Amino acid sequence: MLPDRAFFQRLADAARKETLPRFRNSLNVVNKLEGGFDPVTEADREAERAIVSIIRKEFPDHGILGEEHGMVNDGADHMWVIDPIDGTRAFISGLPLWGTLIGLTHKGDAIAGMMTQPYIGEFFHADHTDAALYGPHGRRTLKTRGTTALAQATLCTTSPFIFADGKIGRYQALEKQVRLARYGTDCYAYAMLAAGQIDLVVESDLKPYDIVAMIPIIEQAGGVITTWDGAPAEQAGDILAAATPQLHEAAMKALKG
Amino acid sequence: MLPDRAFFQRLADAARKETLPRFRNSLNVVNKLEGGFDPVTEADREAERAIVSIIRKEFPDHGILGEEHGMVNDGADHMWVIDPIDGTRAFISGLPLWGTLIGLTHKGDAIAGMMTQPYIGEFFHADHTDAALYGPHGRRTLKTRGTTALAQATLCTTSPFIFADGKIGRYQALEKQVRLARYGTDCYAYAMLAAGQIDLVVESDLKPYDIVAMIPIIEQAGGVITTWDGAPAEQAGDILAAATPQLHEAAMKALKG
Repeated sequence: MLPDRAFFQRLADAARKETLPRFRNSLNVVNKLEGGFDPVTEADREAERAIVSIIRKEFPDHGILGEEHGMVNDGADHMWVIDPIDGTRAFISGLPLWGTLIGLTHKGDAIAGMMTQPYIGEFFHADHTDAALYGPHGRRTLKTRGTTALAQATLCTTSPFIFADGKIGRYQALEKQVRLARYGTDCYAYAMLAAGQIDLVVESDLKPYDIVAMIPIIEQAGGVITTWDGAPAEQAGDILAAATPQLHEAAMKALKG
Repeated sequence: MLPDRAFFQRLADAARKETLPRFRNSLNVVNKLEGGFDPVTEADREAERAIVSIIRKEFPDHGILGEEHGMVNDGADHMWVIDPIDGTRAFISGLPLWGTLIGLTHKGDAIAGMMTQPYIGEFFHADHTDAALYGPHGRRTLKTRGTTALAQATLCTTSPFIFADGKIGRYQALEKQVRLARYGTDCYAYAMLAAGQIDLVVESDLKPYDIVAMIPIIEQAGGVITTWDGAPAEQAGDILAAATPQLHEAAMKALKG
């Protein structure tokens, strides 16, 4: 039996017990890369430990790829892909736009996923039958909006400075064609795309655990998500998500520079 | 009798009834400036109308300066300064970092203020005796943290592109000295400064209704807020807020370019 929404909710609850008490409190920020600023917190590590513990008990044959603890059962058909805190910089700045991301792939295809924002109390979830937000003001079906032209589009990205080398020029070629660009959004941008609030998300150099959870949410809501070159988003890297196929095609063309 | 926290809460409740039902719904976005993108919504106008109506009834001698409807009782000793939705771009993008700002000045000095984020259910308030957040996870006294060095500081601003002409260079001279810069925060950044989560906020070309409400919150929490040149923040324009006097001085020096 495959995991249902209740099982994802159980994982979210276990993660929340580790993340929420540490949010907006003094944090033991450990730099993962010597000399660099790559904050990771106890919350990150403990939330992943809690999630992995439940999955290993309930689905011992499944594989698990976590940001913090690496790979379990490499090569399994079903693979869980986990980022316990996506947006650690938002987390340590008190901004409630970080999320806990849990995706499930089958033979490489993302088939179910969730993003939660525990401080606000939002739970975004999708499988192949449904995509919905369960939040502080009730349930809402997730559906992208119908924007097809770049000139009408709102674009989100985490920062205009995340794009290395030649990619910054390609990003700017797209940004100058859209109506509005917003920064500082991390995973929350993909949730707002699925919710029909924005039209485009563009990021680069993502790892699978940054994006796999959001793929079913965006696709089931009617959006399109691939790499900048149109390859499956499951391979991560440079990611483009759009509200409609037409907008996705226009943005992919603009990103060619 | 001067307005207490319960009165501010009453204003917040009245505003929320106009803003929250229109958040993440289809919006009638009206461009205020022909040709430019300056979104303002029904929510903005109706929330200000609701706030002004209560103030005029309870404090008929007070003045009111609102973003949407302009000035009432110009020259009064007590002046209310209102931005019904600060962060309209966040609002129309579904991002819960916009806020309703209401400040009160006496002979030009900000003496009380509030910021609310109705979707999350947060109410930040300060007068000359107390500064606190009332949120979904309880009450918390607002207190800035003790950061004194730029190299340890987290800085927030709405966008690195809000700084016109020569100001961008002055901003960048500061940004390159801090540990971390975050974008996309609008009024929420000042709330996080007061809550001890970040250390600096830098913005430019603000109007009084963008900032007056946040002055008592930051000052009562232990922070310092002025213009880039050290003048009273009540005059608005280019604003610098810092967690400590030492950090404020260091940032002001960096902003001289």
